[in-house]
Amino acid sequence: MSTKNALPHHLKHLLEKGDVLYQAGLSVDCVIFSFHEQQLKILLLKMDVVQKWALPGGFIKISEPIEEAAYRVLRERTGLKDIFLQQFYVFGAPDRSDPSIHQKRYLNFGIKIPKDNWLIQRFITVGFFALVDYNEVLLQPIQEGVQFEWIDVEALNDLMMDHALIVQKALETLRTQLAYLPIGKNLLPKKFTMPELQKLYETILNEKLDRRNFQRKLLSFGILNRLNETKKGGAHKAAYFYTFNEKKYQKALKDGLYGSW
Amino acid sequence: MSTKNALPHHLKHLLEKGDVLYQAGLSVDCVIFSFHEQQLKILLLKMDVVQKWALPGGFIKISEPIEEAAYRVLRERTGLKDIFLQQFYVFGAPDRSDPSIHQKRYLNFGIKIPKDNWLIQRFITVGFFALVDYNEVLLQPIQEGVQFEWIDVEALNDLMMDHALIVQKALETLRTQLAYLPIGKNLLPKKFTMPELQKLYETILNEKLDRRNFQRKLLSFGILNRLNETKKGGAHKAAYFYTFNEKKYQKALKDGLYGSW
Repeated sequence: MSTKNALPHHLKHLLEKGDVLYQAGLSVDCVIFSFHEQQLKILLLKMDVVQKWALPGGFIKISEPIEEAAYRVLRERTGLKDIFLQQFYVFGAPDRSDPSIHQKRYLNFGIKIPKDNWLIQRFITVGFFALVDYNEVLLQPIQEGVQFEWIDVEALNDLMMDHALIVQKALETLRTQLAYLPIGKNLLPKKFTMPELQKLYETILNEKLDRRNFQRKLLSFGILNRLNETKKGGAHKAAYFYTFNEKKYQKALKDGLYGSW
Repeated sequence: MSTKNALPHHLKHLLEKGDVLYQAGLSVDCVIFSFHEQQLKILLLKMDVVQKWALPGGFIKISEPIEEAAYRVLRERTGLKDIFLQQFYVFGAPDRSDPSIHQKRYLNFGIKIPKDNWLIQRFITVGFFALVDYNEVLLQPIQEGVQFEWIDVEALNDLMMDHALIVQKALETLRTQLAYLPIGKNLLPKKFTMPELQKLYETILNEKLDRRNFQRKLLSFGILNRLNETKKGGAHKAAYFYTFNEKKYQKALKDGLYGSW
């Protein structure tokens, strides 16, 4: 027989006081995107006892605004601060919760959660997403038995519960926003080439784009400044570097890429 | 002393069984838009005991998908069926619930809700919105002591709880969609003039638009067919009637007004 470790404080806390400290049946989950080495990535965590990648998420304190809960959960789970989160959808399929995940976490410490405990109920979750700079995120282990990693969107499989659906919906929201808002400021380095920008769009849209159409369209938005500097090396013709025109980028964020009415 | 009426079945039901039949702390609210006599209108209800206009809303059964709850609530409250509802935002300010509203409804029947009852808790609400044809909605009184009316968006004031905020956010979502999606099919008659279409946009955007720019932009989307027929009468030059090109309208709904990438 193995000796079980003592139940960590935060798990004890959830088990014994969850019902009075947290809003019943409601959680938040965060889809954090970044772009690195020409890949769109999502920040996921894996608990030793569950062995499936999952979105960072958590509960909402009884008198806490939902947005604050999302920021707090992200900070507590990943150490990330000052990230602009956008609420994008609520996931409420009656069978989306999986009480066996909680059971596994507690059984690991020799504890069986009673069937009438607050943790064993239907949870509806509010999805938030953010686009962040890959290089500004330091992935530190915050909790024991939990690892964090950036996973390629294309390499996702078998996520926990309905988290694949949540990622899918976040991607759809991102694709929709791509149609009328500028994107890239947090995702690309300060100067980038047109092929790099195109690759970002192609990755989000999950389709190949025509090089000339893309360039014409992007330039027509007037949000790019071309630098007098080209990127050397590579098999192709040297490509010019671009930066975003900060003022016009901000205006397009407000009025849309095609201008106001 | 007045004789109190017996508590209606649905209120008794909520009071006594709400905690086992419905998801705790969560509700849905529906913002139903239509356009009539050049005004954007919202379907609101007013309970005799509350005397403030409110959005049709209700609770989510313990094993009911959120979307189904929204459709059911709308049907039960207004008789409306087959309406395409879009989830748009979650409202979760800790102080948004107002237990005194429930108290008033029950006090009307001589009943005081106990403080620990399910109804007296923080409720977070999921907002849904829809655009409907004004003429297809028959406003029938479904519940006693509740009146329904189309209220001009511009004439809204002093709505119940945070419902003004919910309407505001629905309008913002509609304005954003206006930038990349076609609109008008459910809101305008089958044939309409350019000034009528412009008025719809102006009402949603809450700003005056330049007539020539508007016409040029709308025609450039390729979703309109001009008829060989003009609208007679009025102070202005006779205006051509237009209809939506069904095929191109549907394509624009899918790919966006500016086409796919």
